[in-house]
Amino acid sequence: MKWNRNLPAGTKDKLFREANGAYQLEKQVNEIVTKRGYQRIDTPVIEFEDVFYSEEKNEKEFYRLFDNQGRLLVLRPDMTMPIGRVIATTGIQPPLKLSYSGKVFRSNDDMLGERNELTQAGIELIGYSSLKAEVECITCAVEILEALKIPNFHFELGHAQIFRTIVTSLDLGEAEKSELQIYFNNKSLTDLKRFVEKHPSELDEFICAIPRLFGEADEVVPTAKKLLPKESRIMTIIDELERLMTIIEAHHRKISLTVDLGLVALMDYYTGVLFSGYADLIPDIFLRGGRYDHLAEQFGHPAIPAVGLGINLDTLVSLQYQIGELASLDQPTTLVHGSLTQITKSEILVKEHPDYQLSLFETLEEALEYGEKWHYQQVIEVTEDKVQVIKVGTKN
Amino acid sequence: MKWNRNLPAGTKDKLFREANGAYQLEKQVNEIVTKRGYQRIDTPVIEFEDVFYSEEKNEKEFYRLFDNQGRLLVLRPDMTMPIGRVIATTGIQPPLKLSYSGKVFRSNDDMLGERNELTQAGIELIGYSSLKAEVECITCAVEILEALKIPNFHFELGHAQIFRTIVTSLDLGEAEKSELQIYFNNKSLTDLKRFVEKHPSELDEFICAIPRLFGEADEVVPTAKKLLPKESRIMTIIDELERLMTIIEAHHRKISLTVDLGLVALMDYYTGVLFSGYADLIPDIFLRGGRYDHLAEQFGHPAIPAVGLGINLDTLVSLQYQIGELASLDQPTTLVHGSLTQITKSEILVKEHPDYQLSLFETLEEALEYGEKWHYQQVIEVTEDKVQVIKVGTKN
Repeated sequence: MKWNRNLPAGTKDKLFREANGAYQLEKQVNEIVTKRGYQRIDTPVIEFEDVFYSEEKNEKEFYRLFDNQGRLLVLRPDMTMPIGRVIATTGIQPPLKLSYSGKVFRSNDDMLGERNELTQAGIELIGYSSLKAEVECITCAVEILEALKIPNFHFELGHAQIFRTIVTSLDLGEAEKSELQIYFNNKSLTDLKRFVEKHPSELDEFICAIPRLFGEADEVVPTAKKLLPKESRIMTIIDELERLMTIIEAHHRKISLTVDLGLVALMDYYTGVLFSGYADLIPDIFLRGGRYDHLAEQFGHPAIPAVGLGINLDTLVSLQYQIGELASLDQPTTLVHGSLTQITKSEILVKEHPDYQLSLFETLEEALEYGEKWHYQQVIEVTEDKVQVIKVGTKN
Repeated sequence: MKWNRNLPAGTKDKLFREANGAYQLEKQVNEIVTKRGYQRIDTPVIEFEDVFYSEEKNEKEFYRLFDNQGRLLVLRPDMTMPIGRVIATTGIQPPLKLSYSGKVFRSNDDMLGERNELTQAGIELIGYSSLKAEVECITCAVEILEALKIPNFHFELGHAQIFRTIVTSLDLGEAEKSELQIYFNNKSLTDLKRFVEKHPSELDEFICAIPRLFGEADEVVPTAKKLLPKESRIMTIIDELERLMTIIEAHHRKISLTVDLGLVALMDYYTGVLFSGYADLIPDIFLRGGRYDHLAEQFGHPAIPAVGLGINLDTLVSLQYQIGELASLDQPTTLVHGSLTQITKSEILVKEHPDYQLSLFETLEEALEYGEKWHYQQVIEVTEDKVQVIKVGTKN
């Protein structure tokens, strides 16, 4: 039979301990957010493409398909846009604390070896303009990461308005904006120098310093402020960021928190503080979030203040496995074997002992063989008139 | 902004109590199967199309898409075929008791109003040839349905080999087989009469009786046997079915169990007993399963005996909602409001009381307004030197 044994690029099967561990981890995250007062929301995997319209930068990554009327659908590449759609169209009333967990899909370049089918969990605080909502996001993330025993996690904070303010001040077009974004992302000093030569402004010094304006806030913030004109709007933004960091550090004494003033928002809808989460042994950012007060507007609804974050659960599952923290499987010790007429008796015995398992084999020999192979301690044989314990390995 | 407010046909948003209830129900099912010794398996949503090759009858229902190399992918329409793929290709050793839960996708005709994105949970017993495996499937289903408080559920049993034996005996081609299948499904007496006139055999009487050979086993089985030639292979099949039903009824005294000798397997891979589950207030079958000893062969692997069943969880969520059994949401009673500098103190208070919730509002006035709107009993104001309880509705 002609049959392709491969899986599509970026997908994988999870079996046994990995599948159980992934499920338990997702459950643990969901339990924490539920306890913190978040309400679950579950949107479809399949959506019309225009829901994700603003993510034009990433549209290459969409999995596209057609419905049976020929309308273009996509597999959701993220969860925040569908939640924006729900808020804007269903008439549900903010403020709301929403949570989700489920799969998202991105058709990455095969060569990158990235996952194309990912499990994400996250929270969205809709209708909250207070900095308390940002603090809540970080507190919730800390609670989750501590519960999952993720070692040495740390957060990096940035602000979507720094880059935006520069773009507006320099009156950049789309092409120049994209160019500058690349230089910011690459922390490319020489390119930035060349860029400010072409687009001179009072922000030159600050822009050229961007590649080194990351790290501890008490070093980065004073340096940045010295480079900025006194009345610059960026000054206010950095003040807000500094205030938030002070509050977070007072609330979470042991937290590892740095700042990156060159952070550029991945999505257009971000309007304020940006979060990135890192941890030892994880090569990439596993947590992203921030304030996005303009999301609802994209769906023709008046603006609603909002903050949220999403966590890549697959990465945490791999990490938990690596450090031996992934939930282990309960190993049964005893196989209960009886004939079909003894099934009720056998079932009662199994129900009474969590480490007993029902044998579904036809013969006692098969049960014993299986018990030996998988290191059971004993097989219990249930017959009409007696219950007999057989130590595994003693009856051959 | 031009924007389509609709969701794709057959998909829906789940919010608040429905989303939570659906999640809790899925969790409950997963906990039961884990306790019964099943191991979780999680295969991708996206698969190459040839995994589902044998389901040619339903291929109209596939959601198809292309990967970035132009290879044809589908969104999985069921979970059993991917599990067959895993068994056949990964070298994992049966016997195995596997369980799954997740979404499956079927592009139904819009007019039918059916769900196109469904949540299923199920079990697969791989490598077990004993009737104990069939009994285990039913026992597991009974445990789940009782735990979920599904009222008046009942099972209908059939056997895939009855229809197949007729097809082989009459030496029918593909077109005639499909025709006969329709008459079986529709219990179409006159069509069956016409059919046996064209294809006369010693099975004529039995075939024509199919439309009424369903109901209580102790009525249906003797009637069927009288219509069959003594040496018919169908006689043996009915005996096996009767034996299984006797065992199940002895084990589950209160179970509602009927037989339908005209049941035709939906999928080609079924080889033995077929299960269908019904319940009051549910218009359609919500549970399907059976024995499918030929699944692994479809993936070029030697045959492995196997039995499994899948449950449509969305249907059960709707039913639970209808009868008031869907998990309710915990209503917080108290909103704890403090300034940003009091957040640690506020958080400690909330952690100590499961029915307290942190206010993320900027001002006490907003917290009070929200508390009144959503029927909180009290708002607790945390300031540097005191903790003050304000009964909701008393401070306006």
